[in-house]
Amino acid sequence: MIEMILGVDIGGTNIKLGIITSDGGIVEEDMIYTDAEKGPAYAAARIEDWYRKRKGDYPGIGCAGIGCAGLIDAEKGFLYYSPNLPEWVDTDLGRIFAERLDLPVTVENDVNCAAWAEYKMGSGRDSRYFVCITLGTGVGGGIVIDGRLYRGWRGFAAEIGHQVIMADGPVCSCGNRGCLEALVGAAAIVDRYLKQDDRPDSQSSGKGKISVKDIYEAAGAGDQRAAKALEETGKILGIGLANIANILDPELIAVGGGVSGSGDMILEPARITMKEHLIGDILSPVRVVPAELGNKASFLGAALLALEKY
Amino acid sequence: MIEMILGVDIGGTNIKLGIITSDGGIVEEDMIYTDAEKGPAYAAARIEDWYRKRKGDYPGIGCAGIGCAGLIDAEKGFLYYSPNLPEWVDTDLGRIFAERLDLPVTVENDVNCAAWAEYKMGSGRDSRYFVCITLGTGVGGGIVIDGRLYRGWRGFAAEIGHQVIMADGPVCSCGNRGCLEALVGAAAIVDRYLKQDDRPDSQSSGKGKISVKDIYEAAGAGDQRAAKALEETGKILGIGLANIANILDPELIAVGGGVSGSGDMILEPARITMKEHLIGDILSPVRVVPAELGNKASFLGAALLALEKY
Repeated sequence: MIEMILGVDIGGTNIKLGIITSDGGIVEEDMIYTDAEKGPAYAAARIEDWYRKRKGDYPGIGCAGIGCAGLIDAEKGFLYYSPNLPEWVDTDLGRIFAERLDLPVTVENDVNCAAWAEYKMGSGRDSRYFVCITLGTGVGGGIVIDGRLYRGWRGFAAEIGHQVIMADGPVCSCGNRGCLEALVGAAAIVDRYLKQDDRPDSQSSGKGKISVKDIYEAAGAGDQRAAKALEETGKILGIGLANIANILDPELIAVGGGVSGSGDMILEPARITMKEHLIGDILSPVRVVPAELGNKASFLGAALLALEKY
Repeated sequence: MIEMILGVDIGGTNIKLGIITSDGGIVEEDMIYTDAEKGPAYAAARIEDWYRKRKGDYPGIGCAGIGCAGLIDAEKGFLYYSPNLPEWVDTDLGRIFAERLDLPVTVENDVNCAAWAEYKMGSGRDSRYFVCITLGTGVGGGIVIDGRLYRGWRGFAAEIGHQVIMADGPVCSCGNRGCLEALVGAAAIVDRYLKQDDRPDSQSSGKGKISVKDIYEAAGAGDQRAAKALEETGKILGIGLANIANILDPELIAVGGGVSGSGDMILEPARITMKEHLIGDILSPVRVVPAELGNKASFLGAALLALEKY
């Protein structure tokens, strides 16, 4: 019987990690730099250091769950590709961490982890058909079907941010055009805000100086231009949500990630547009709610997935 | 032990029906008019007539599977909404047919039935993560996940034709803009062909006189304009397939329906565009193949789903 789990969430900049009880309580949590360019073995060694200093206090730790940005085969614990961790491609993360930590280890995509945590103990806890979307610099997704994390054939499912909803739209980080990420990711929101400016050079002059947080704070303080940028973003997000809903027919969609801090300023127009685009909008509608677990979702979910397995 | 099944496929114009063996063999098959405006009870009575004339010859018939176009709750056998059967809305089809036929009955969306038949005995037979798309006047879909038909929370999943891939694109039959159906359905293909014509009135003058079959036969005979219309259609279809693949990570996508008769003239450009848009295109790719069972897929699948249940 495993009492505690080491939960780890590896991003391009930071690693969040913590010690989690079997019912999802956080006993201890911390954040260290990823130093991604030094490679996965270096990161594993520093996570090991962190863990060794604490394992004496928590003898009940029985496994570790690793969440990581990128395309991951969870069964093999293998990272194929990660735009945020370019030096880490084609790495057997499961083996590296299992050897370092001397624990049974699971490795899973970070947004899948977040979706699992939201399903087990957050916004999705009563919804067996559940989709979690993270809005931030990137737009990611995780899918729970009939109470199980849905990974697809190779483990690459739920790349929701790279659905094309505007063919010939703006170029996305992936190289294609009109992906949801290119339309509602943080950069797109800042662009949308700046382009409303009348000054002809506004697009270049303002770029990089304004964050989405600035925009939703401005909107909250009554700035109509900021409010309009968020509303437009929500309308487009709603099309992406409708595509998901028309394909998967989920009960609930939770929206998390940094951009979701703007709350209903984005979500309410998204709900309206989604409803207009739902084919099955004749019974109780798909609900769209904010995610609840914030940036703790991924390391919590990583831990809970490890617990599920071991 | 059920030896034979009555399989029925109800469309807006015709009802296909047949007697199917438990291993999917077709013992007898027929087609009758739907006479949709006379309502479901009338159709059920005529299907009952057909069945009663034959049941003496086939005492092994133990259940009936009904496939029907529209939004269906398969668990309840209830038809909520069907654009092709407007008089049939909010009907307990399961009860009506079970009483008429005096058999255990299942009711399922017709494209879900087709997907199930393709999975059990057609193009998808070796793929546990399988998507079947039908291209015709409408664009429909069915999803098999881990060897089970995927219905979603309410049974409305796989409305693949109404994913928006070109926001602000052409108006769709559903009232929204830029749905896959509005871009690659039969009418869109004919439009695309006619719009290449130099004559200024070509759009109106030719409409209604040309079918997709005419276009792919012309393309096969060397008509470059026809070939170009099909190629453009395929390129757009590829974006829709990539969206599906990025969300569901299937092993195989089969494309059926009337339009698919054009074969690789549409499918080959679709494969190329899909590949360009796949996030996980780093391992063996998702395969796109023609469906194998033609217009027999739905009544076969309806029968096999009934067999599965009883």
